[in-house]
Amino acid sequence: MKQSQPRLYAGLDLGGTYLKCGMFDDRGVLLGKTAVPTKRERPYSEVLKDAAAAVLRLAEECANNATLTAVGVGAPGTVDGARGVIVYSNNLAWADVPVGECLEGLLRCPVRVLNDANAAALGESVCGAGRGYENVVLLTLGTGVGSGIVLNGTIYAGKCSAGAEIGHTTVRRVGMRCTCGRRGCLEAYASASALLRRARAGMTRDPKSRLWSLCHGTPEALDGKLFFEGVRAGDGTAASVLKHYLGDLAAGIVNVANVFRPDIILLGGGICAEKDLLLPPLRRILDKEIFGGNRRANVELDVAELGNDAGLYGAVAYVRTSLDITKNGGRL
Amino acid sequence: MKQSQPRLYAGLDLGGTYLKCGMFDDRGVLLGKTAVPTKRERPYSEVLKDAAAAVLRLAEECANNATLTAVGVGAPGTVDGARGVIVYSNNLAWADVPVGECLEGLLRCPVRVLNDANAAALGESVCGAGRGYENVVLLTLGTGVGSGIVLNGTIYAGKCSAGAEIGHTTVRRVGMRCTCGRRGCLEAYASASALLRRARAGMTRDPKSRLWSLCHGTPEALDGKLFFEGVRAGDGTAASVLKHYLGDLAAGIVNVANVFRPDIILLGGGICAEKDLLLPPLRRILDKEIFGGNRRANVELDVAELGNDAGLYGAVAYVRTSLDITKNGGRL
Repeated sequence: MKQSQPRLYAGLDLGGTYLKCGMFDDRGVLLGKTAVPTKRERPYSEVLKDAAAAVLRLAEECANNATLTAVGVGAPGTVDGARGVIVYSNNLAWADVPVGECLEGLLRCPVRVLNDANAAALGESVCGAGRGYENVVLLTLGTGVGSGIVLNGTIYAGKCSAGAEIGHTTVRRVGMRCTCGRRGCLEAYASASALLRRARAGMTRDPKSRLWSLCHGTPEALDGKLFFEGVRAGDGTAASVLKHYLGDLAAGIVNVANVFRPDIILLGGGICAEKDLLLPPLRRILDKEIFGGNRRANVELDVAELGNDAGLYGAVAYVRTSLDITKNGGRL
Repeated sequence: MKQSQPRLYAGLDLGGTYLKCGMFDDRGVLLGKTAVPTKRERPYSEVLKDAAAAVLRLAEECANNATLTAVGVGAPGTVDGARGVIVYSNNLAWADVPVGECLEGLLRCPVRVLNDANAAALGESVCGAGRGYENVVLLTLGTGVGSGIVLNGTIYAGKCSAGAEIGHTTVRRVGMRCTCGRRGCLEAYASASALLRRARAGMTRDPKSRLWSLCHGTPEALDGKLFFEGVRAGDGTAASVLKHYLGDLAAGIVNVANVFRPDIILLGGGICAEKDLLLPPLRRILDKEIFGGNRRANVELDVAELGNDAGLYGAVAYVRTSLDITKNGGRL
């Protein structure tokens, strides 16, 4: 009788604003999703109770009589995976929170916790644009530059999972101050926020830029979508800003290629919707600058596929692998 | 009877100038070393014949009646480890040379080939200053900046072993042209050659520098030893050159720490004999700039221990691991 019950796996994404949950079947198919507000000002036990309730509700909705087999949790910040503890999360304002233990008590099934950027990289490598590759590096261009590294099909995060901070590698030693205190970090030049900051500075220097009309005269209203509209409309300032931005982003990409020589480098984040404007120039620089040329040991460059769901896919892949449920060499 | 014969393992280092060989016993103890000129202008088969002869001679010298069990070979350039082929070596001027097959024919035992920088990193991680650590990155400061990456006790070299080129990561986007064609590579600022180039430029700007008398008025005669004599003698120009050099080197070290968060970063190369002048300022910058601070997930910084023998130790560790001879989780 037990045999006929479908197995379910939940992926949770503990964001500072929303708790997102995805329910997957045995074959790794996403059956359904839900999101509830985090309300992070509450005690963590309340937040985790809501998360558990969301998981159970979604499991019920996705399949009657289903067994919740395991739950993977992606969380912002430093995670001690072995103990299932969020060591520190600036985003959630949590320190030393035993997420795994709490959720296992509420959900009565095994729970594994990992950093959300690592979860996204694993998700893309298992089910997204990195499918079929051994070594995958994901750079997510948002407020900062997030990154996740998958080597030999497994997340590499370094000591205490504190590594994989590619956004905080200096590419301009005498450059701009980064939020981390160093100068010239990739994040300070290649994040989506940095692109908009540079676009606003460009507008200020060029009163005739079409960007002014696109944002109705309010530089603060300029977002990624409007900026790329400006580029497509042939605005010279927007084109120039994009060119310089891509030069810095490419420097980071070539650095990653030379250090890891991965099979593929993936770019994530909202601005990757504009991939036709981003990928061709970045690929040209990569092919030209990669050490020893890009023919013999080709590094591919593409955009991520799973968007905000990458972390859910990755969290489930992680818990399934770490519980050794899967057969195929520990991969989904 | 066979049981009583001691087992020997040889490490070979195929340098552009010398073929070096080390003989190790079953417990990983270096029993003896030898070196013969490479004479690389000859056909590769001649070079490999000499290498094999050196191995056999040394085996005979180190132990009577010994069985040569396996040979590990470190070689400069791109190596296809699975096939035992040197795909391309600028240093030896070899392309697609089946080193493994040739030496197995001559030596009648299993041979494995790997890149020499990777061999050095593995050697340090197994038998040298990285002993006991899981994740070790070695930066070798010489003509260039070589690097080897050991993650989870195993060499990470990326696709076709073309990765681990940390020397060719940009740290100054608008900086000096590197030999690889990019601008501002770590190698262009942090190699031992770069230090001397900067010292010579400093002397030229400062006719009163003590470096002039140390090199008897000939800047070309300035070497690392004389430069550090200048620093120790209190020469202001030498001190200033060193300070700026260490700033660039530290940028590379912090980048490595943020990307890999390894247990330890090791510096190799001749100038590391001056470790009392190098390590304290580098450690200060590392502690200050590493992402999130260096307390919770401390990255150590030290100099390598095995010098030019590191590659021999590493080559033997590699062949023993890949033949699964060792019991202790594949480690010596």
